[in-house]
Amino acid sequence: MSDPLRIGIAGLGTVGAGVIRILQQHADLIAQRAGRRIDVVAVSARSKGKDRGVDLSAYDWVEAAPDLALRDDLDVVVELIGGEDGDAKALLEAALGKGIAAVSANKALLAHHGCALAAKAEQAGVPLMYEAAVAGGIPIIKSLREGFAANDIKAVYGILNGTCNYILTTMRETGRSFADVLKEAQDMGYAEADPTFDVEGIDTAHKLCLLSALAFGVKPDFEKLATCGISTITATDISNAQELGYRIKLLGISKILDGKIIQMVEPCLVPEHSTMGAVEDAFNAVFVEGDFVDTGLAVGRGAGAGPTASAVVADLIDIARGHTGVPVFGVPVDSLADAQWGDPGDMVSRFYMSMIVKDEPGVLAEISAIMRDHDISMEAVQQKARDPQNPVPIVIISHEARQAAIAAAIESVAALDSCVEKPVLMRIESF
Amino acid sequence: MSDPLRIGIAGLGTVGAGVIRILQQHADLIAQRAGRRIDVVAVSARSKGKDRGVDLSAYDWVEAAPDLALRDDLDVVVELIGGEDGDAKALLEAALGKGIAAVSANKALLAHHGCALAAKAEQAGVPLMYEAAVAGGIPIIKSLREGFAANDIKAVYGILNGTCNYILTTMRETGRSFADVLKEAQDMGYAEADPTFDVEGIDTAHKLCLLSALAFGVKPDFEKLATCGISTITATDISNAQELGYRIKLLGISKILDGKIIQMVEPCLVPEHSTMGAVEDAFNAVFVEGDFVDTGLAVGRGAGAGPTASAVVADLIDIARGHTGVPVFGVPVDSLADAQWGDPGDMVSRFYMSMIVKDEPGVLAEISAIMRDHDISMEAVQQKARDPQNPVPIVIISHEARQAAIAAAIESVAALDSCVEKPVLMRIESF
Repeated sequence: MSDPLRIGIAGLGTVGAGVIRILQQHADLIAQRAGRRIDVVAVSARSKGKDRGVDLSAYDWVEAAPDLALRDDLDVVVELIGGEDGDAKALLEAALGKGIAAVSANKALLAHHGCALAAKAEQAGVPLMYEAAVAGGIPIIKSLREGFAANDIKAVYGILNGTCNYILTTMRETGRSFADVLKEAQDMGYAEADPTFDVEGIDTAHKLCLLSALAFGVKPDFEKLATCGISTITATDISNAQELGYRIKLLGISKILDGKIIQMVEPCLVPEHSTMGAVEDAFNAVFVEGDFVDTGLAVGRGAGAGPTASAVVADLIDIARGHTGVPVFGVPVDSLADAQWGDPGDMVSRFYMSMIVKDEPGVLAEISAIMRDHDISMEAVQQKARDPQNPVPIVIISHEARQAAIAAAIESVAALDSCVEKPVLMRIESF
Repeated sequence: MSDPLRIGIAGLGTVGAGVIRILQQHADLIAQRAGRRIDVVAVSARSKGKDRGVDLSAYDWVEAAPDLALRDDLDVVVELIGGEDGDAKALLEAALGKGIAAVSANKALLAHHGCALAAKAEQAGVPLMYEAAVAGGIPIIKSLREGFAANDIKAVYGILNGTCNYILTTMRETGRSFADVLKEAQDMGYAEADPTFDVEGIDTAHKLCLLSALAFGVKPDFEKLATCGISTITATDISNAQELGYRIKLLGISKILDGKIIQMVEPCLVPEHSTMGAVEDAFNAVFVEGDFVDTGLAVGRGAGAGPTASAVVADLIDIARGHTGVPVFGVPVDSLADAQWGDPGDMVSRFYMSMIVKDEPGVLAEISAIMRDHDISMEAVQQKARDPQNPVPIVIISHEARQAAIAAAIESVAALDSCVEKPVLMRIESF
């Protein structure tokens, strides 16, 4: 058996502790599979004294994470600090610069600085691995870089944020409001104290950036990504969708349209009885379409100590086995193209619209005329009168239409005197 | 860029032609991803003159497939002949014996002789890859050997035969009989002229053998696998299942129970609104449970030129990238254990039973007494009287029970004078 793979871990939150737990608990199994032992040599985190439920006594303690890269006894640094800058970035730059392999779970850092870091890794001839950065329980980075490498990829999309999916699932099951369910999720530790990254779709956008780069051979480009989260989704939208046979999911979508990439993060309606519709709670799902493999879908836990740590250790086993010849984003950095972004307005799909209008004669005729004027034909219109004295909700499902036309139509509807609230517009995605 | 990877392909059926089509169509993309070109040097198949829709003029033609291994200009042989013996086996043995890497899509050969072939590959220090052997569109071999390598795997199971799933889906959608739908599938080329391997579960069993070996680190052992196919499934069973909210799927199941492996192939009821239940037509699905990653499910096309060829070429790209350090079955051959097989009778689950009985007073009481005597409690009993002059069908869903108890109970029911047909018993699997 070869020499052990010597690693240093920076960041000992739930994922870092999980990595150590796997490496300790499965030391022999991993050695058998990898052909060598994986030994933790040094660790670094903010607070030394904290009880993390794992025995750290055998490892050197390093105060400042970037100092791990100064050591001469490490083959790999594992970056589990998080954040798109600061110590995480400093550590990876220093390690790769020195020719130490790196494993990271940091989607924000990679979405913003992935290209520069990949160049450093390539120059040093060492791997930069990040399976844990996207949907920990689903080996989607490996699938895109290796499993589907024979394909021209046409589309990659999915449910990439477990917190949002948990909130949407609970809202549907209980009929409660977004704010109410978010509060509970925070109390239970499922959502962060500042939930912005999750619920506004930013975390999904970071992950989608990496998937786009891998799928289409382009530089990760976070700036060009239109993002809409779930904080404005109402219990009414969810029950409307359910009555029509759909569930609302926050999707990250990246697909090729007329040779350009359309990339967006937004809540969509998906058929409740589809495989994607059946993905509930904190589960993630990623859908891939390739020219030869056709369509594939993978479902697994997106977050949590176990699944994320499992992905980190899989990367370490790859490195231990000498599996280090895969370019960071699937092709060498100098082959990564600047993405040509298409206009989401060109996307054609069916849409869900809901609006609250005054219950006056002719309102439905006005709305229908607006749809007709924008060349949008309607599959279903539901007027749900609850109380003749009050405004009434109208739900419309369109046939396939260009997003730009739908957006223009909904703006005209919003401008009607009879429209009393901002209408809601969501794409229907079928799988 | 490094030297091209030089390959020889044996077998030019739909998959072989598909591999050539991908290599020709995506030559540049693959070279970019793999860091070197993948060049076909020689091919071999039964009939030289046949039009396969791809241009073979640049390749040497080799009459006898095993002779590919005699050449000195090949880095890899690709075996797409099929069959558990004959030329396929001869070619792989000769190639690996000579230190030529091998890629195969042959589940039958690997299920029967995988261990010996893996030993040959290991001795020569060359890879034996077989992603295409199981669920071509799902990179499940890679996921088990690499993606989930940090886990102690507890279970792996799924829908592994596209032909069976297509037949069951069509039977459900149309209400037609097995024989009728099979005939149509044969006419359309979806099923073989001799469908035994597919519909009797043998193909699923071959694949399950490989998944078990990978998941649990045991020698593939086809002999010990209990197999039941779908040829006895009736339209009535399918509609009964549907009324109860289930779909019938042919599952290959391998799981750890009390430290032993339970492995079987049988049609099961799965909830129609689960992710597994939503897997229809010719799609495959594989479910994996690991101690850290928790549960994961992947869905994709199981067969067809595109998906299978995509898997073959992914293996070639792995080899071209130098990714050759993964043991054939996840651990070195001398670490593969002889499997300890558990008794399927110990499996606890809910069961579906259907029986046709004479419509006499006391029959239901007799059946209920048998269930009680075997310690089986019933969740639902439906007596569907169609015609008072004729025997009536009874459908029972049990609560969780040991399979051995259920099997004994159903035997007692079958022995009743009032039972006019052999009762049907199927496991209910929830995901």
